[in-house]
Amino acid sequence: MSNVGKLAIYPGTFDPITNGHLDIIQRAVNLFDRVIVGVTTNPAKTPLFSAGERVDMIQKSVSNMASVEVEHFDGLLMDYAKKKAANVVVRGLRAITDFEFEFQMALVNRKLAEHIVTVFLMPNEKYTYLNSTIVKEVAKFGGDVGSFVSKDVDERLRKKFNHS
Amino acid sequence: MSNVGKLAIYPGTFDPITNGHLDIIQRAVNLFDRVIVGVTTNPAKTPLFSAGERVDMIQKSVSNMASVEVEHFDGLLMDYAKKKAANVVVRGLRAITDFEFEFQMALVNRKLAEHIVTVFLMPNEKYTYLNSTIVKEVAKFGGDVGSFVSKDVDERLRKKFNHS
Amino acid sequence: MSNVGKLAIYPGTFDPITNGHLDIIQRAVNLFDRVIVGVTTNPAKTPLFSAGERVDMIQKSVSNMASVEVEHFDGLLMDYAKKKAANVVVRGLRAITDFEFEFQMALVNRKLAEHIVTVFLMPNEKYTYLNSTIVKEVAKFGGDVGSFVSKDVDERLRKKFNHS
Amino acid sequence: MSNVGKLAIYPGTFDPITNGHLDIIQRAVNLFDRVIVGVTTNPAKTPLFSAGERVDMIQKSVSNMASVEVEHFDGLLMDYAKKKAANVVVRGLRAITDFEFEFQMALVNRKLAEHIVTVFLMPNEKYTYLNSTIVKEVAKFGGDVGSFVSKDVDERLRKKFNHS
Amino acid sequence: MSNVGKLAIYPGTFDPITNGHLDIIQRAVNLFDRVIVGVTTNPAKTPLFSAGERVDMIQKSVSNMASVEVEHFDGLLMDYAKKKAANVVVRGLRAITDFEFEFQMALVNRKLAEHIVTVFLMPNEKYTYLNSTIVKEVAKFGGDVGSFVSKDVDERLRKKFNHS
Amino acid sequence: MSNVGKLAIYPGTFDPITNGHLDIIQRAVNLFDRVIVGVTTNPAKTPLFSAGERVDMIQKSVSNMASVEVEHFDGLLMDYAKKKAANVVVRGLRAITDFEFEFQMALVNRKLAEHIVTVFLMPNEKYTYLNSTIVKEVAKFGGDVGSFVSKDVDERLRKKFNHS
Repeated sequence: MSNVGKLAIYPGTFDPITNGHLDIIQRAVNLFDRVIVGVTTNPAKTPLFSAGERVDMIQKSVSNMASVEVEHFDGLLMDYAKKKAANVVVRGLRAITDFEFEFQMALVNRKLAEHIVTVFLMPNEKYTYLNSTIVKEVAKFGGDVGSFVSKDVDERLRKKFNHS
Repeated sequence: MSNVGKLAIYPGTFDPITNGHLDIIQRAVNLFDRVIVGVTTNPAKTPLFSAGERVDMIQKSVSNMASVEVEHFDGLLMDYAKKKAANVVVRGLRAITDFEFEFQMALVNRKLAEHIVTVFLMPNEKYTYLNSTIVKEVAKFGGDVGSFVSKDVDERLRKKFNHS
Repeated sequence: MSNVGKLAIYPGTFDPITNGHLDIIQRAVNLFDRVIVGVTTNPAKTPLFSAGERVDMIQKSVSNMASVEVEHFDGLLMDYAKKKAANVVVRGLRAITDFEFEFQMALVNRKLAEHIVTVFLMPNEKYTYLNSTIVKEVAKFGGDVGSFVSKDVDERLRKKFNHS
Repeated sequence: MSNVGKLAIYPGTFDPITNGHLDIIQRAVNLFDRVIVGVTTNPAKTPLFSAGERVDMIQKSVSNMASVEVEHFDGLLMDYAKKKAANVVVRGLRAITDFEFEFQMALVNRKLAEHIVTVFLMPNEKYTYLNSTIVKEVAKFGGDVGSFVSKDVDERLRKKFNHS
Repeated sequence: MSNVGKLAIYPGTFDPITNGHLDIIQRAVNLFDRVIVGVTTNPAKTPLFSAGERVDMIQKSVSNMASVEVEHFDGLLMDYAKKKAANVVVRGLRAITDFEFEFQMALVNRKLAEHIVTVFLMPNEKYTYLNSTIVKEVAKFGGDVGSFVSKDVDERLRKKFNHS
Repeated sequence: MSNVGKLAIYPGTFDPITNGHLDIIQRAVNLFDRVIVGVTTNPAKTPLFSAGERVDMIQKSVSNMASVEVEHFDGLLMDYAKKKAANVVVRGLRAITDFEFEFQMALVNRKLAEHIVTVFLMPNEKYTYLNSTIVKEVAKFGGDVGSFVSKDVDERLRKKFNHS
């Protein structure tokens, strides 16, 4: 019902948040009344940053966007989305390999909560091939990731990898 | 601005509208305040149905959805979208070949109207490999397309191809 | 029922038959009791060779395979397959773009005749990127297609394009 | 030789078997005289279910298909296929990422045993994006996987993850 | 032999040349001693610009690159490349659908002239989804293509389509 | 500047080198004045062969190519390439999944060193689906990898896996 507004959840591990993620958040803000960035943890991988650090980095990056909240969540995305009474799940779609994984997730999520719609947004083409893994890989060896992440994230990466 | 609502345009040739298209329209209706189905003509192909017939078939199919309008338009999608003051362009995304074409169009459209966001929705998986061309191909040879299109469209296809 | 044997149809335009097609036919022969090569015509394209010529070229190429027949057919593949009481439709799968088109066709064909199974075979990797269109393109300008088609087809191509 | 019938092997880890796997087994049964479901173990991953449990779950699922056997095997698929005198290896093909991995395996397998043909079957489109990993992921967090696996597998998943 | 330098051919229809093409030419200039931009005509399509106009537009665009020549050629690319004693064919690679077509062409070209190497270059990501067809489509309806092509090409497009 | 020649780096883990890698090296030798095969280590995986062994296997394989050197390097590829004053990074491109990963890396590498061009070469189609991982998988179980790697590498694989 449009009179109460639409709530969108943008889920991810954000380890760390990149300019590509921010580009998607900005588009979601333009489309929906409220946006929750939902920070989760992939149980199969040890993150570089703790959940708290990841929430913190995102909050700093979205401090100028009034309709955005950042939260950590555990368990299934769709259980979280239902608890929040979300209408929409937002996902960025960059490349073919994304595409198949995202479709699989969207299908399963639809079975788990039929009324919540997954919406795919396309980041600016300059972020097409950007992701958190490659940012960490480059930062680890002291490469410059200043065009991929915010200044705050850049500094935290340097600190993590003892470059400074 | 959410208080005036979001207007989405769902453009296509719809020659004819299939159950996959209807599935996308239904999802768009759940997300946005108003949806315009914009019927255009691919200048490189002669359509089976006239623009008027195509608009008519869609109108019959969406008659139960109060927030949906159907219109024919000429020229560039983004000029039409700007004229309508649309916030969103909706596209269905079914398969990889879609994906690349859609990304190309979305990129160009963004250059032409930066503030209008292209949103991709995924149809039910049972429509993944369905499109208007294959429906026409099957109908032409008298095959049964009853699970792909509405009863009205099915009848019009039979009439076009002199099966009945 | 295995005691009456399995009949497979391998449909295509075969304009002209290439070594890649022959490779698939040979594999089908090893799997199924009878194989019909079904020669059809894409209504959207004017073929280089007539249906009769295409059937003839295939027959020459499969003359040493006792369980293979070659036939021209019109209309929907699945109507033809049902008329022949076929159990299987065989398709070669070479590349990603094939993959999507083939899946779409297989899906529609399954709706039209649920009990007929589409089976995908992979040609030898040396034929991965070979198709009839490229053979014609090269032959047209007098290029050597001797490693792509049989001697008979090679000669007919030269004659068509007035090289020789 | 068709008079002795064709034997097909359908290999996989099946951790656990899903409705998508069962759909492929049913199609293979319609095509070939005998089908062996070959349960193997990916040395790089610790399975959720033991080989014995995985064989057991499959046997329960195929108990109504007289021509299907279920076996565990170690080592190279093609060594196993040769030992069994199989004519065919059956693989399900769902999506593009499957496609490339499957082609690579089929190519290598052909080098190892030229006379055994790899056959690709397409599951029902409703299983296009279904796999064992996602089933486990959902079940782990107590999500409902009842439309993805059999009742028996569903119960075993609940037990493994202490949901009941 | 490096002492006589490497000659690269960059073939295409260039109807018209875009900033993406120019990006590839600039990279080729950095890699090889001489670059010939070979302007050909796709026999299946009527170009918007004549071969002479297309050569002319490219020449204007590369006038500052001393090692680049522009020529029209007919017939098979590899016959032309052999006549010119080229060492290299340069192709831009933007997206998946490119990829498959390009691989097919590269394979056939290798069969026709084993010693000439096809080299793929990646344009700047901002040109990933840019091609001549979309430029013409946008220009036709009076859309602004100023960020996709040079000023000269922009003006010629306007003139062709009777805008301004 | 062509008078001092072009230096290309072909980076990889080469664990172990396959005939597909050698095919790319041979093509690079035909294109550039000097080629350095740069052996690196993926920090996320334990290699089967030590860096020293990997360098040694490559050196044996390229001993007849005067312009090729083999070296181990640590850290970021682009730092290494800059240190060596390389003009070119060479990558083999076999399949779609390669394509996306390679594009991502090329994009990031370009940001790190704008003047070094990434060049993609296509191996012979018979190596399209060959990689080091599958070679190790087959060799581990005593399968014959003689058509995938050199005699020296074949023997070392047997020794590693205690087949002899």
